[in-house]
Amino acid sequence: MKFSSKTLEKAVEAMSALPSIGKKSALRLVLHLADNKGEKKKRLIDAIEALQNELKVCEKCHNYSDTNICNICFDPARNKKIICVVESVKDVMAIENTMQFSGVYHILGGVISPLEGIGPEDLNIYSLVDRLKNQEIDELIMAISPTIEGDTTIYYVSKLIDNAVSISTIARGVSFGGELEYADELTLGRSIHSRTEYNNSMSV
Amino acid sequence: MKFSSKTLEKAVEAMSALPSIGKKSALRLVLHLADNKGEKKKRLIDAIEALQNELKVCEKCHNYSDTNICNICFDPARNKKIICVVESVKDVMAIENTMQFSGVYHILGGVISPLEGIGPEDLNIYSLVDRLKNQEIDELIMAISPTIEGDTTIYYVSKLIDNAVSISTIARGVSFGGELEYADELTLGRSIHSRTEYNNSMSV
Repeated sequence: MKFSSKTLEKAVEAMSALPSIGKKSALRLVLHLADNKGEKKKRLIDAIEALQNELKVCEKCHNYSDTNICNICFDPARNKKIICVVESVKDVMAIENTMQFSGVYHILGGVISPLEGIGPEDLNIYSLVDRLKNQEIDELIMAISPTIEGDTTIYYVSKLIDNAVSISTIARGVSFGGELEYADELTLGRSIHSRTEYNNSMSV
Repeated sequence: MKFSSKTLEKAVEAMSALPSIGKKSALRLVLHLADNKGEKKKRLIDAIEALQNELKVCEKCHNYSDTNICNICFDPARNKKIICVVESVKDVMAIENTMQFSGVYHILGGVISPLEGIGPEDLNIYSLVDRLKNQEIDELIMAISPTIEGDTTIYYVSKLIDNAVSISTIARGVSFGGELEYADELTLGRSIHSRTEYNNSMSV
């Protein structure tokens, strides 16, 4: 790509350093910003600066927050005795959108992955153990991706906690609206293994 | 989408105001920036600020530039007597990448489109006429999209110039590597109409 301006080239480089933004998309975004008369650029700069300077991480659950304790951990209506353990902030948002969970969260910041050099000390695992020590907890719900790394992480946490708290994992099976023939064998096999009793008054 | 932080929400809003970035993509980009320890955010802020404060528009051809006259217009090796008229900066980059053109450019900034309320006065058409008056020009190559709006723009420019300079349009026809059966009728019809004599020494 030939650029008529170094400024333009640097902006495209900075933009294409973001995930899933290639050089062509970056160029389109940068030209859009360059064509725009100030307002959009200023909003974007202010927003990124706020991410830099104002965004905090909740001391309890490690969720992004505007305050030292996030609004979920702070909310008196939430059940503090049930902690849902997730990988990332995105997972918290996904679960919150279901409106099916009224406990609190703990964000690990990833899963144990020896191949990528991510060990337990790189994650918020020990702070989870501290929470269990300092507070009465009834249940840990492990809402972790059903991958080898995810299962390893769940195993590691369960060993570390050593039956101090009951641990559950989210149900794995065939998706609602999914067709059986397209489900992979492992999922389908597990969903038969973990079958639940039919209840015709059950709501979906 | 439920956000744990206003800062995060504002950043997602600012990011999703960019073209082809939806709310979900914006969230991924923002969380990537938030997770990143400073460096990427700073580079992006600096780059957008440079777009705001340092990027200039070439006085002659309206290309983005670091200087008042862009490096194409400034280059003594380029033929200043042939002007290629294009819609946008992106088109200049596309033509430069072909390395088939050694003249200079003129960027209109769009095409005449009554439906979108874009008239000749919104484009850099009169500055093109000024260039033709002030300087000896041999040819205008109209490298404008083959649309109704594009054709209207070419017609308007040709009327305004009134045969003062010879005008050509870029060839329209079947793409290299394209298959005839998939070419649309208009293109195929025109490409038969504008057939060129076969020359077996012609390089592709």
